[in-house]
Amino acid sequence: MKMKFRSFVVAAGIIMSSSSIAQTTAPTVIEDFKPSTLNQPGQEYPQVNSQGYARFKIIAPSADSVKVSLGLGGRGGTRLKQMPDSSWMGTTEGPMDEGFHYYNVNIDGGKFNDPGAQNFYGSIRWESGIEIPAHDQDFYALKDVPHGMVQQVLFPSAATNTSRRAFVYTPPGYNNDNKKRYPVLYLQHGWGEDETAWSVQGHANLIMDNMIAEGKIQPFIIVMTYGMTNSARFGKIREFKMDTFQTVLVDELIPYVDANFRTIAKQSHRAMAGLSMGGMETHFITLNKPEVFSAYALLSGGVYTPEEIKDKSKLKLIFLSCGSKERPDAVKSAVTTLKDAGINAVSYISENTAHEFLTWRRSLHELAPLLFKN
Amino acid sequence: MKMKFRSFVVAAGIIMSSSSIAQTTAPTVIEDFKPSTLNQPGQEYPQVNSQGYARFKIIAPSADSVKVSLGLGGRGGTRLKQMPDSSWMGTTEGPMDEGFHYYNVNIDGGKFNDPGAQNFYGSIRWESGIEIPAHDQDFYALKDVPHGMVQQVLFPSAATNTSRRAFVYTPPGYNNDNKKRYPVLYLQHGWGEDETAWSVQGHANLIMDNMIAEGKIQPFIIVMTYGMTNSARFGKIREFKMDTFQTVLVDELIPYVDANFRTIAKQSHRAMAGLSMGGMETHFITLNKPEVFSAYALLSGGVYTPEEIKDKSKLKLIFLSCGSKERPDAVKSAVTTLKDAGINAVSYISENTAHEFLTWRRSLHELAPLLFKN
Repeated sequence: MKMKFRSFVVAAGIIMSSSSIAQTTAPTVIEDFKPSTLNQPGQEYPQVNSQGYARFKIIAPSADSVKVSLGLGGRGGTRLKQMPDSSWMGTTEGPMDEGFHYYNVNIDGGKFNDPGAQNFYGSIRWESGIEIPAHDQDFYALKDVPHGMVQQVLFPSAATNTSRRAFVYTPPGYNNDNKKRYPVLYLQHGWGEDETAWSVQGHANLIMDNMIAEGKIQPFIIVMTYGMTNSARFGKIREFKMDTFQTVLVDELIPYVDANFRTIAKQSHRAMAGLSMGGMETHFITLNKPEVFSAYALLSGGVYTPEEIKDKSKLKLIFLSCGSKERPDAVKSAVTTLKDAGINAVSYISENTAHEFLTWRRSLHELAPLLFKN
Repeated sequence: MKMKFRSFVVAAGIIMSSSSIAQTTAPTVIEDFKPSTLNQPGQEYPQVNSQGYARFKIIAPSADSVKVSLGLGGRGGTRLKQMPDSSWMGTTEGPMDEGFHYYNVNIDGGKFNDPGAQNFYGSIRWESGIEIPAHDQDFYALKDVPHGMVQQVLFPSAATNTSRRAFVYTPPGYNNDNKKRYPVLYLQHGWGEDETAWSVQGHANLIMDNMIAEGKIQPFIIVMTYGMTNSARFGKIREFKMDTFQTVLVDELIPYVDANFRTIAKQSHRAMAGLSMGGMETHFITLNKPEVFSAYALLSGGVYTPEEIKDKSKLKLIFLSCGSKERPDAVKSAVTTLKDAGINAVSYISENTAHEFLTWRRSLHELAPLLFKN
């Protein structure tokens, strides 16, 4: 199956535009800027203020122009100005959406990363990242609670003739009870990201640790692997075929995980979820393999229709979500239609977020308590 | 204890200068350049040829000057020239040392990373990395052998009032035999690096997987954590105190690892090693805590003298190594002195390498078979 990304974007109601808000009248910017929590150690910039404005500072004394991709989206981001000390500085014209944003810096026509910020794999490249503190950030904060572990595994893949990498989250206490077995969620990243996304920018492990500490969920294992199997044509999403990834996931990774971790190796205790393109993969694979997964979740990644579900008796849950700045009506109406057809479907809309990671952190937080309830 | 980095460098015989070789006569550069194996997906540059020359290409059409930090070390790296298509290109003046090198790109006076290369944490910042294929690279290659796992753990640290991160390598089969227990090597990164260094640029996990597959070593666990505990003063090595790190390692991390992994929790089955500043930490902590570790290894990280060893009966091995371009004589003569004093000491000199990661990959490869032999 060849994938057409543009038509997927339209069908799924994804809004790819920037998350910033252009202001029509110049608001008062409060001068309480602090270094972003995602800065490299000891770096003062980029900074964020209490309103969500971001301020950037780049050292490139002899440059002719410096722009940051964040701030005004289609209108060209934020153009920095050279200061008397020769550094380049600028502040977004309006507040940014809460949560995590990828960005880059254009210097004299070339695309680079901000040396002050940490890098995150997105858009088929390592990009700079900035975090606008969210009012509900507590649910993914690093707290003094028992922590699970995130393991890097290298599993053999005959289909792609290599060892492939996956990350496996095991809940707190996994190593202390050799008898207990756990359900598994297979959780996929989006286009241009990789298997690091969910545990790094997604904080999936901390979301789980916190919910387990609060007794809100049944502990389960999460497996995250790389979903773009035909890397030779990396970046050409139109040429992306999901068949190979289905083989890697279902015929290679799942048996590996079931052999090496204490899983409950049954359809009833196995779920799949994905964000954006990972949702598209989830949609494709769950419909092809209803005997493998019992719960399906698409995060900003399209919808299911009742006609697509061949055997409702095997399906325990469909979860559909997106940001309120995407197309929430499409998600809500799909869930209504699924419910009318007798399917256990749940929708979730992340308020005031777009096609970005805060939408997906919140979606995982909403999804987790619904999974594996007997 | 306050650490003086400059005097440490002199004492340990560390050569911090560039690894490249300046040629006096212009050699013939063979035009068989290929993308570096550490490039970001789909990126053609940087490239490396069969002689070890590196070639860079940077897009920054309006820049006035573009330089790469690699190539001529103290003489300013490699200056790129603007091509007719407006891109900037350049080739190192001579071949580079085999192995991994950190670098950065100076654009109009600012320090950035090469958008073509992956980033690696070194020098208290994420830097670009390039790999010059080594003639002996097979020992750290990703092969079709059983692979161990690398786990991220977050362990509670009262001494630093936070959850701290460590990576734990468990050998192949660890998850398949709930009875077997393993010795542990605590392995430290160098100054400006972090707990990711050994498993990413160091390939410690692949080195272990390959040696275990070949039956060359007894499988053991490796624990890697962040050695710069006073991060508030990050970067000021003169203010770095090792006392806190000793507390974190010995009183917090080791008990956590012994409680959560199937270790042989005895001095006889616990070793410590470190590279560069990590060697300095190893030196400090092993001498303070002879009841905790039985084997000590300093990789480009100084030496021990017989007078420092209070109780030889508890010490099973001292391993000292460095690159041949550092100060091998200091390492060899220290080992001779230790042996003369009746201590089981081994030296290893990595041929044609300096204070860089190929020295340390090879050192781990030499050290591993010597550890935990009954």
